[in-house]
Amino acid sequence: MEDCIFCKIVAEKIHGEKLYETPNILAFLDIAPANYGHTLIIPKRHYETLFDIPDETLKEIATELKHIGKAVIDATGAEGVNIVMNNKKAAGQIVPHAHFHIIPRYVSDGHKFFGNNKKYPDGEMTKVAQKIKKGLV
Amino acid sequence: MEDCIFCKIVAEKIHGEKLYETPNILAFLDIAPANYGHTLIIPKRHYETLFDIPDETLKEIATELKHIGKAVIDATGAEGVNIVMNNKKAAGQIVPHAHFHIIPRYVSDGHKFFGNNKKYPDGEMTKVAQKIKKGLV
Repeated sequence: MEDCIFCKIVAEKIHGEKLYETPNILAFLDIAPANYGHTLIIPKRHYETLFDIPDETLKEIATELKHIGKAVIDATGAEGVNIVMNNKKAAGQIVPHAHFHIIPRYVSDGHKFFGNNKKYPDGEMTKVAQKIKKGLV
Repeated sequence: MEDCIFCKIVAEKIHGEKLYETPNILAFLDIAPANYGHTLIIPKRHYETLFDIPDETLKEIATELKHIGKAVIDATGAEGVNIVMNNKKAAGQIVPHAHFHIIPRYVSDGHKFFGNNKKYPDGEMTKVAQKIKKGLV
């Protein structure tokens, strides 16, 4: 897509610190890393979110998360790693070209995830489950 | 594994609010949701992290993230969704049985992800990339 920064990195119209690519996917460093080595994996074709990525490409990304994630850990000495994908603005997606984050983590890096988790009132959890299951038959 | 709470949910030794299963994977509601409908997808067999999950199972999980994620959005009216996987304690993994979170999100839900992102000093980004690429040849 013409105005998409990730499409421009794929097309080498702008520089990205590329790590690895196949005909379908590209891995490169995030320029604003949560920790050094923070990597993005994207489908080369422009899809907005997870739900737009064809299954075959998604499966390739899944195995590359493992493959490239291992290399990130080995290179950075990370003590853990988050895999994160934000879909739509409400979920924190900034660039509207689907991307998976591989984030090297350390016990004392100070990053916090979701706090303030909720509890379901009595009976509510089953109701929510029933609603979701309707979409899965 | 004997002491694993997720293995116990798989084996129905304790109750989980199950949503969907196949011979290899199980989806159920997180009991401490970031938002209602917060779902976990796990391989039924006990693997600790992403890096222990066999590729075939991982590919199935990837396509189920899409399939089940859509049902979660439809049921909750979420405006976005995060896919999150925490690997090892340093990354916030609490239950040491590999699991992917599907988290319904809303513009005004107040959840924050990684703030305080860093910048690479001049030249550092390329050095980090070179280190990672060594593991990818």
